[in-house]
Amino acid sequence: MCYGYWKKNIHLNESNFSVFFRKNPFNSGYAVCCGLEFIIDYLNNLKFTDSDIDYLKSLKSDDGENLFDKEFLKFLKSFKFTCDVEAVEEGRVIFSNEPIINVRGPLFQCQLVESAVINIFNFNTLIATKASRMNLSSKDDTILEFGLRRAQGIDGSLSASRASYIGGTSKTSNVLAGKLFDIPVSGTHSHSWVLAFDSELESFKKYADVMPNNCILLIDTFNTMDGLDNAIIVAKELEKKNKRLLGVRIDSGDLAYLSKKARAKLDKNGLEYVKIVASNDLDEFLIKSLKNQKSKISVWGIGTKLVTAYDNPSLGAVYKLTALKNSEGNWDKKIKLSEQKIKINNPGINQVLRFKKKEVFGGDMIFDSTAETVGNKMIDPNDSTRYKKFSKKYSHEKLLIKIFEKGKLIYKCPPLKMIKQRLEDDLKMLDNSHKRLENPHSYPVGIEENLYMEKKKMILNLRK
Amino acid sequence: MCYGYWKKNIHLNESNFSVFFRKNPFNSGYAVCCGLEFIIDYLNNLKFTDSDIDYLKSLKSDDGENLFDKEFLKFLKSFKFTCDVEAVEEGRVIFSNEPIINVRGPLFQCQLVESAVINIFNFNTLIATKASRMNLSSKDDTILEFGLRRAQGIDGSLSASRASYIGGTSKTSNVLAGKLFDIPVSGTHSHSWVLAFDSELESFKKYADVMPNNCILLIDTFNTMDGLDNAIIVAKELEKKNKRLLGVRIDSGDLAYLSKKARAKLDKNGLEYVKIVASNDLDEFLIKSLKNQKSKISVWGIGTKLVTAYDNPSLGAVYKLTALKNSEGNWDKKIKLSEQKIKINNPGINQVLRFKKKEVFGGDMIFDSTAETVGNKMIDPNDSTRYKKFSKKYSHEKLLIKIFEKGKLIYKCPPLKMIKQRLEDDLKMLDNSHKRLENPHSYPVGIEENLYMEKKKMILNLRK
Repeated sequence: MCYGYWKKNIHLNESNFSVFFRKNPFNSGYAVCCGLEFIIDYLNNLKFTDSDIDYLKSLKSDDGENLFDKEFLKFLKSFKFTCDVEAVEEGRVIFSNEPIINVRGPLFQCQLVESAVINIFNFNTLIATKASRMNLSSKDDTILEFGLRRAQGIDGSLSASRASYIGGTSKTSNVLAGKLFDIPVSGTHSHSWVLAFDSELESFKKYADVMPNNCILLIDTFNTMDGLDNAIIVAKELEKKNKRLLGVRIDSGDLAYLSKKARAKLDKNGLEYVKIVASNDLDEFLIKSLKNQKSKISVWGIGTKLVTAYDNPSLGAVYKLTALKNSEGNWDKKIKLSEQKIKINNPGINQVLRFKKKEVFGGDMIFDSTAETVGNKMIDPNDSTRYKKFSKKYSHEKLLIKIFEKGKLIYKCPPLKMIKQRLEDDLKMLDNSHKRLENPHSYPVGIEENLYMEKKKMILNLRK
Repeated sequence: MCYGYWKKNIHLNESNFSVFFRKNPFNSGYAVCCGLEFIIDYLNNLKFTDSDIDYLKSLKSDDGENLFDKEFLKFLKSFKFTCDVEAVEEGRVIFSNEPIINVRGPLFQCQLVESAVINIFNFNTLIATKASRMNLSSKDDTILEFGLRRAQGIDGSLSASRASYIGGTSKTSNVLAGKLFDIPVSGTHSHSWVLAFDSELESFKKYADVMPNNCILLIDTFNTMDGLDNAIIVAKELEKKNKRLLGVRIDSGDLAYLSKKARAKLDKNGLEYVKIVASNDLDEFLIKSLKNQKSKISVWGIGTKLVTAYDNPSLGAVYKLTALKNSEGNWDKKIKLSEQKIKINNPGINQVLRFKKKEVFGGDMIFDSTAETVGNKMIDPNDSTRYKKFSKKYSHEKLLIKIFEKGKLIYKCPPLKMIKQRLEDDLKMLDNSHKRLENPHSYPVGIEENLYMEKKKMILNLRK
């Protein structure tokens, strides 16, 4: 497509593309914005290397001709990113249909970055949202992220560790993620540690010896309750050295039943402080169920279901052309219809106002950022008879922040801990009804009345 | 754990770890082995850089002490991979419970590589298997892989493009994957191409002008059948230049209905050669359903459901300690029980014999590669009363091939096309009943009788 724009000499036409998703993942009442730092890295370092050019030069069309003109490849070699970018910051709660990222500048540049931008946004936001749901269902218990071995590729694990940490996990077992993103690392031993010694008891003693301050013992290699007896012996020995066994981990069997039995036995032995760590394909629903059954788990080791977003492994964010500058220098709004209503975009260069009253979010209004006046009434895009009007009692803020100006990065990515905090702050302001795991109350996202009317007119015109 | 082994001075003990999975993904009758080339790259380049060591040096335990001894970090700095590795080659059909990769050598080395090895194996095998299923359901129609934008991270897309190609796709839209792995690339234009021009017809004409030999037109930006009319005009213009419109793409609406209407109209206009390309969250079941409905699609653009393995987004392969060399220099078999039968491993250093009769695979027998004699009878691990005996009419081959010998790479990865061909050859020898999308007949995988009896004895001893 970039080649086509260049051939037809419209590659430098000014355009605006918007990223949005059509449905919250996991039927969640919200999503957690994540991935911007990676997108910035990508855009800031984008260029065509000699080997890229050589590869493109080697491509042939089906009849054996070169696919690309030499002149085009020369043009690519001199590529420099010069677009404006606005985006919602990481750690904000976001919702379907609202613009999250706007990329604005020469048509071919905006087009070129499409796939990478939405790849990064989709995956990171998906995992941060999943982690946030698990955190809500665990009621702020400690969650350890153990996903590396089951993740979708190497980066599927690295990005996921960072996104999970933003969303609500406390530590990761991925040491490289710890190094790259400054996430606290933590791990336990595996069954092979136990098998590497002559007996389970010996293996536990040796582990406690090596990790006296971070000792979590995996007790289900042979039989969970026998393993617990061995762990209790080791805990008592640690006490003599003024150390404390941190926890015991159960990785198989009925976690509700076993955790209660283990808790009772630990308590009977004066080991109330020893935590019970559970793992084994856990997700937010299993955590909730185990909580409802009054299981005695207080640390959750979560891998597969988190880092692959198992029940909804892709967020379907798209990247759509929403405006083109015409020859008079004005922006023409653009819309596509397709055969499905859900696939229609909001035309124009849009921004979102988030309204707040008494420290509770009241709704997000999508509006035309180039319009001279903006109303305070928004229409539900799924039901034109429903609307919401924001009185002066509401304060508001703009959600999309300037990131690049003419290709120059003007935004400083905050440290991970601050992003994590921002999510906590946002979640406090989101009514509990939107945070329900199942059938959440939909948060009001609407289109400002003038923009709504203009969009409707455009659709009717196109349908003719 | 590596630190623990080192502290307890058992880090150099010889050990054998095996990779296997407990259940075929997608309830499939088989899986497609994939990822070995990446695993080889990883193992062949594994080392601790200065910045890795600095990071590990900075880690503290919960009481503020350094987590690792300086001597240990010095030891890591001098790390060199010296293990033996055997593995099933890429493109082979494989089944649950059989060993796919054996890593054998110093305990800490085997342990160190665990997570990366199974991460790579899990993801690549998962996607190659999914692609193979889609290929079977499309009955060898052309499948274009369009997954980049919805994949799980950057590598989630790159690895997936390669694995998909092995499994059965023809081309990828991921140009970087094309460059890195020598996969044919292909793409179509998006809706934004259409919106970038004053009319759909103009945009089609311009596209045909730029890509006269590779022209696929997306016809659903406004209305599919109107879009088709425009595409027909362009096809006729191309004919005047002795060129042919390759296809039209439909990306929304009822694909069965629209493809039939489009086919009829194309044919009526003498454009029998123009292919109908469909995309929009397709998977093997939708392809099958569209085929059953006699839809007129002959090229399938597949993204999300393929590259994320949407309905089963993680393969649960594990990596288990199966043998340790004792002080007399003999291998002791190792087994763990856990609370769930499915989590028990096969003890020992095992290999797989694949039996074949009249160009049809008859079964895979897991056997102890260190045993002096190997029988020809195998027991079903899930039902000890079921067995299979292989007469002399069967030929057989060993599935696991030597890859590394004492850390030295002795295997040459074949080109992608050869791997693709190997899968085709294997699938021809797999009875159709195992290739059914739903409720496939289980392929016989058993444990050689002597090994089975030994495993049973070990379990009974441990249960005491």
